[in-house]
Amino acid sequence: MSFKSLKLTPGRLLATIHDTAEKFGAKGVWGPASTETGVCRLTLSDLDKGVRDWFIAETKGLGCEIKVDQIGNIFAIYPGKKENANALPTAIGSHLDTQPTGGRYDGIYGVLSGLEVLRTLKDNDFVPNYPIALIDWTNEEGARFPMSIMASSVWAQNIPLERAYKLESVTDAEPVTVEHELKRIGYLGETAASYLANPIKAHFEIHIEQGPILEDEDKLIGIVTGVQAYSWIKVKVFGKAQHTGTTPLAARSDALLAASKMIVKGNELAKKHNCLFSVGVLNLQPAVVNVIPEHVEFIIDVRHVKDDGLSVILEEIKSDFVSIVGDSGRALTVEFDHIYTSDAVKFHEDCISSVTESAEEIVGKEKARTIISGAGHDSCATSTRVPTSMIFIPSKDGVSHNPAEYSKPEEVHTGFEVLLNAVLKYDSKRTD
Amino acid sequence: MSFKSLKLTPGRLLATIHDTAEKFGAKGVWGPASTETGVCRLTLSDLDKGVRDWFIAETKGLGCEIKVDQIGNIFAIYPGKKENANALPTAIGSHLDTQPTGGRYDGIYGVLSGLEVLRTLKDNDFVPNYPIALIDWTNEEGARFPMSIMASSVWAQNIPLERAYKLESVTDAEPVTVEHELKRIGYLGETAASYLANPIKAHFEIHIEQGPILEDEDKLIGIVTGVQAYSWIKVKVFGKAQHTGTTPLAARSDALLAASKMIVKGNELAKKHNCLFSVGVLNLQPAVVNVIPEHVEFIIDVRHVKDDGLSVILEEIKSDFVSIVGDSGRALTVEFDHIYTSDAVKFHEDCISSVTESAEEIVGKEKARTIISGAGHDSCATSTRVPTSMIFIPSKDGVSHNPAEYSKPEEVHTGFEVLLNAVLKYDSKRTD
Ligand SMILES: NC(=O)NCCC(=O)O
Ligand SMILES: NC(=O)NCCC(=O)O
Repeated sequence: MSFKSLKLTPGRLLATIHDTAEKFGAKGVWGPASTETGVCRLTLSDLDKGVRDWFIAETKGLGCEIKVDQIGNIFAIYPGKKENANALPTAIGSHLDTQPTGGRYDGIYGVLSGLEVLRTLKDNDFVPNYPIALIDWTNEEGARFPMSIMASSVWAQNIPLERAYKLESVTDAEPVTVEHELKRIGYLGETAASYLANPIKAHFEIHIEQGPILEDEDKLIGIVTGVQAYSWIKVKVFGKAQHTGTTPLAARSDALLAASKMIVKGNELAKKHNCLFSVGVLNLQPAVVNVIPEHVEFIIDVRHVKDDGLSVILEEIKSDFVSIVGDSGRALTVEFDHIYTSDAVKFHEDCISSVTESAEEIVGKEKARTIISGAGHDSCATSTRVPTSMIFIPSKDGVSHNPAEYSKPEEVHTGFEVLLNAVLKYDSKRTD
Repeated sequence: MSFKSLKLTPGRLLATIHDTAEKFGAKGVWGPASTETGVCRLTLSDLDKGVRDWFIAETKGLGCEIKVDQIGNIFAIYPGKKENANALPTAIGSHLDTQPTGGRYDGIYGVLSGLEVLRTLKDNDFVPNYPIALIDWTNEEGARFPMSIMASSVWAQNIPLERAYKLESVTDAEPVTVEHELKRIGYLGETAASYLANPIKAHFEIHIEQGPILEDEDKLIGIVTGVQAYSWIKVKVFGKAQHTGTTPLAARSDALLAASKMIVKGNELAKKHNCLFSVGVLNLQPAVVNVIPEHVEFIIDVRHVKDDGLSVILEEIKSDFVSIVGDSGRALTVEFDHIYTSDAVKFHEDCISSVTESAEEIVGKEKARTIISGAGHDSCATSTRVPTSMIFIPSKDGVSHNPAEYSKPEEVHTGFEVLLNAVLKYDSKRTD
């Protein structure tokens, strides 16, 4: 039995996307239809707990065994053939958390497509050769707690569990830790958060592109061969609190003026190096109108397709920022705290070829292309430990991290078909 | 009986400054001695309530009648001669609120010097010709609620009471209004907040210079003849929330990058016009690392010695900010909300001459000079309605709005003497 003989249920996946959006965090109206909003479902919030509980009930209903690990990752394991009961599961994973200005698809599409795969197997009484794990990874976005791909990186043992536990939220008036929130919503599980103790065989992930390339080139499927590198670094500028009305410009050590020059400079450097730079988080002290800021902290997000290209621009940024403080006030200093680097990723040939064959069967060679992801994904973390690859579908106008994020119903369905077909191809080729 | 025949109590004023600092908000250690901290006593906070209650008890103890007006200004009225019981009081006023990074002197020195004037009169059984009102004005700093000279401006009817009531705090995690906080601490009084319904004859204020001029020129007293003009304007930049990893630089509408360029540009314009520009408050949305900021709000503080000079630079700032958004991203727009302008002030000849005569008697002509204030003061508001002037003492290194704000004990005492002498001179010259 293969993909072609399976009866599908078109529309069910999209309905599930919209139903769960409606129930768990719909926000950010961008059109007149009731489905035309984004979703704000910050990781480990009450809404995240809600969707997690729903996810577990749904997958249990399909006959899955559930494991929750120490960092809140949920593994729902659908059984394969009896003789392979002890084999490692082939995994499909992504995330159910969103940005504060999130859409209905980023991450969610990946998990719910995986659910639609399991539902389809169940409807068809199709037993795969090997177990299939559907994974909801915790805090992929890095929005509430500023480390993206957090819990898949802990599972891959690229980030110590304790470091993730101690991360503090940037979106709460009173910051709380990851550990606190895991306990509060009841998702600090008992399974070891480790690819060694809780292994998988391979990881597949389907996602919206979040960029404009597929749409611009009229392609339906992106065969993702890799992901660009990126670093997040906290920059701390220390100046001197002084009176804005009595302190001559030349006598100031204005931490915000220096930070502003750094933000402008970082963008100039990114232009020069043909890569990306942005600042999305910035806090200042004492934060009143008539005191020159004495302390500004901001986080830079710098991306480059190559690891060595990323290193070069980071060195230039640091040295230029040091020059800026040198030129901008006697009492100014700057410090850098490295938060996280996701190295450039090349996905695994075995997984890429399953996706390529699947895509070419379903949309044809001319409607698919290989692509490098600009965004990070849980697959970056898994690919450091197990064969991994990804599938992209088009994003309207390349818009993402915005409520208006959108992919057409037929694109959503086609992507799911490619995922199902690719996973079954991989399953059929597995020998252990 | 004149100033010369009064017995003074040197040291008592300084002791009161340090005692009240200790009890009501000492913060920001800058030296080893117990008095070497600043004060953080935000307006209408619990600490402000504490010092207000203390102030009322002290002044009542000296025989003052107390009035609290609808915006929380406290008037403590020390009686003059019986025959002038119905005459308007000569006022001494300043403020007991501070900056988050405040020192022990800014404002506090003015109110406590006034208290020392009343204590000295009482000790000497000296009855002035006319009543003397000692005033603690609410929210002079404009730190917690971003409008400086707020309640003296309401009293002067330059700002509607309702507008002040609705102002929201910028220093609380959950913003609260002025009206809410006045009620909460029990200082929403019954006296009309109006120079017409609750008039005074004149207003004297002593203050630390907060700038470097007196110290640099080895002067002991500044005879303040005026105050520079300043405007606070909220700038709102609207961009588009997008993914930092997938959105090419050229496709972005980055509200923080535009705001950063504006902050750099504002400083350049201030340099060109030989005036002041700063940004002390800046907030952004959604404030996560991997979303390009879609909304940035910041407040500019622009100061110029002349009203027309201020108008010119404000026009240039607005037009350059509009150009910056035009050049920086397709979806960017900018809006300006005017918060407050304090026009350039020229103080009243009668009050200035009382201060000049007093200072020349006490420190000699060569140790006093006329000076223009860079900072705004409650006297700016009162001077729009009644004869007003101010006295400055030196500030070490010109530092203010910083815990390390400092004036020497002998400077503190000398300033008080000049205030006492000036007020008695004014009192003796009054005919109604
Ligand atoms: N896919 C996605 O939006 N991931 C968030 C991590 C990143 O910042 O790239
Ligand atoms: N004196 C003083 O610091 N006043 C605050 C108002 C201003 O910003 O100038």
